[in-house]
Amino acid sequence: MPSSFSLKVPASSANIGPGFDVLGIGLNLYLEVKVSVDPTVDTTSDPYNAQITYEGDGAEGVPLDSSKNLITQTALYVMRCNGVTEFPVGTQIHVINPIPLGRGLGSSGAAIVGGAMLGNEIGEFGFSKERLLDYCLLIERHPDNIAAAMLGGFVGSYLNELSGAETEAKNVDLEFILPKRGVTDESKIVHTPPPADIGQYLQYNWCRKIKCVAIIPQFEVSTDKARAVLPTSYTKPDIVFNLQRLAVLTTALTHESPNHKLIYEAMKDKIHQPYRATLIPGLVEVLSSVTPDSHPGSCGICLSGAGPTILCLATDNFEQIAEHVISIFKQEGVTCTWKLLDLAYEGATVDRN
Amino acid sequence: MPSSFSLKVPASSANIGPGFDVLGIGLNLYLEVKVSVDPTVDTTSDPYNAQITYEGDGAEGVPLDSSKNLITQTALYVMRCNGVTEFPVGTQIHVINPIPLGRGLGSSGAAIVGGAMLGNEIGEFGFSKERLLDYCLLIERHPDNIAAAMLGGFVGSYLNELSGAETEAKNVDLEFILPKRGVTDESKIVHTPPPADIGQYLQYNWCRKIKCVAIIPQFEVSTDKARAVLPTSYTKPDIVFNLQRLAVLTTALTHESPNHKLIYEAMKDKIHQPYRATLIPGLVEVLSSVTPDSHPGSCGICLSGAGPTILCLATDNFEQIAEHVISIFKQEGVTCTWKLLDLAYEGATVDRN
Repeated sequence: MPSSFSLKVPASSANIGPGFDVLGIGLNLYLEVKVSVDPTVDTTSDPYNAQITYEGDGAEGVPLDSSKNLITQTALYVMRCNGVTEFPVGTQIHVINPIPLGRGLGSSGAAIVGGAMLGNEIGEFGFSKERLLDYCLLIERHPDNIAAAMLGGFVGSYLNELSGAETEAKNVDLEFILPKRGVTDESKIVHTPPPADIGQYLQYNWCRKIKCVAIIPQFEVSTDKARAVLPTSYTKPDIVFNLQRLAVLTTALTHESPNHKLIYEAMKDKIHQPYRATLIPGLVEVLSSVTPDSHPGSCGICLSGAGPTILCLATDNFEQIAEHVISIFKQEGVTCTWKLLDLAYEGATVDRN
Repeated sequence: MPSSFSLKVPASSANIGPGFDVLGIGLNLYLEVKVSVDPTVDTTSDPYNAQITYEGDGAEGVPLDSSKNLITQTALYVMRCNGVTEFPVGTQIHVINPIPLGRGLGSSGAAIVGGAMLGNEIGEFGFSKERLLDYCLLIERHPDNIAAAMLGGFVGSYLNELSGAETEAKNVDLEFILPKRGVTDESKIVHTPPPADIGQYLQYNWCRKIKCVAIIPQFEVSTDKARAVLPTSYTKPDIVFNLQRLAVLTTALTHESPNHKLIYEAMKDKIHQPYRATLIPGLVEVLSSVTPDSHPGSCGICLSGAGPTILCLATDNFEQIAEHVISIFKQEGVTCTWKLLDLAYEGATVDRN
């Protein structure tokens, strides 16, 4: 009898407003990973015995070799650290991905979280979500998307200060965690589990009247480029600007009757958005032209992750908001799609059929 | 018949943990201002007809001339902007101040808040606390102590971005707001009310099991010096360190069953405390040696305001914590007192007898 299970991992939006590298939300747009293990099927043409098929966003470019696909690479890392070096013969993995790649909606975070859960299921390790996050954080060093995808809802996260040895274990090169067969120096490949409690997480309540309008420009912003445009130092007034708004935002978003103007002001940022405007034509106008006055129901607008997706929180007028933002991008020659999303309150889930 | 009323304004602690210039808490140690207006008493020897008496901390140095005392200067500013230029003849003001001066417990914030309320009562203007905060913010440009003293409880605050004209009105020199009779150029004295809504405020819930241990070293740190030691710019990792902890702290302190370790980690700061260690001998050891492990019940320790007072949040073992901190300061030759305080949940209050 073949065994089978499936995983669902939400998209996510990080850097919410002033919460650079801190605040993330899981969104109800799900990466699905359907797995069956049927020993009568020959999957040995894959280096680790997994036959991957893929449909959805980025279907042309996503590698289907399990030593190169981010989902299976991550699964193999979790498995290898716990004594399992390959997938059982007959493993078939079908990936359905509606999360746009490279748009700031957490597609790679979802892949890493999905991979960690895949490894956990294949190895039957029974790790908690919190423990799996330690594995994820050795691959993606920023916890915001990862934590939102794994835990769901509205999440604040940070990295703990670890001891010297733990920090060393944490800062291993990615190529020894996700080795490429035949390329990576085998003697250096990591076989030991990560330190425990690398990250700290807190889930906030969320006012369920507030929905997320995601406007997705049709071009990619690479995370590396988006990081490179940020300055190396900041002035005290800019830091205090963000601290003050962050302190208000997490609580303001929990109120049952949202105060649109309070949230709008508390969604402003001076740490990353002003600098990323150079990579995203129209951004300055987009961020300044959707207000609770101009678009009743809107309560704050920001970049999703490093962009280019724009996230607008709103209780009403979703379509008008989206159309306005789309019209500004259109003047810059950029086409957009948009989605009305709700929070993925549960985070990543396993269905063991 | 003489009329009378009295005011109570709490002490406060600002810069809580990572919340530099953002988070404040009102503490149940109250500045009291007892006022009576009896037209049969001759108070005209004072330039504005107020006879001030004072008892408590700093009794030697506090000016009793109403044109020089911060409480009455602030009251006169509120009154002057609304058409009342002096106190009624026969105004007697008795101040009882248990808040140590210059120790980081909001003594000047309490005086400004008390003064604004005094002016409001004398002029019978009926301004709300929120409107009075606009007046206070023209005198003290950092909202954290002011807001905590006025509103009480655990408060996040920030300055709104104002229009050009509003900003100009806001940035008037203090000598024209709190003029000194015979010294200040009379033509420049401010007679117009401040812009509205200069600040934004949010009160958080607070876990009532958590009390505040305030350890007060017997020396003063001037706010100017404490600001001067701060750098003009900061690195991204230090900023993210504070943003991440701030995002967790405001919510972690609301949980009914406090998670001591989570709060402890979320109380850390890299924006002001490391630099102020040069002004406060023993600070580094104090901040690192009270942990939930070393002192069960403790859940975080920080400077109160710009110091030198140390604020330790705890649910138990208050005396042991205080004694430990006092012993470290003693090694540095510094004597301390300490107080176990609760939050002043109501903020500033008027009792009209």
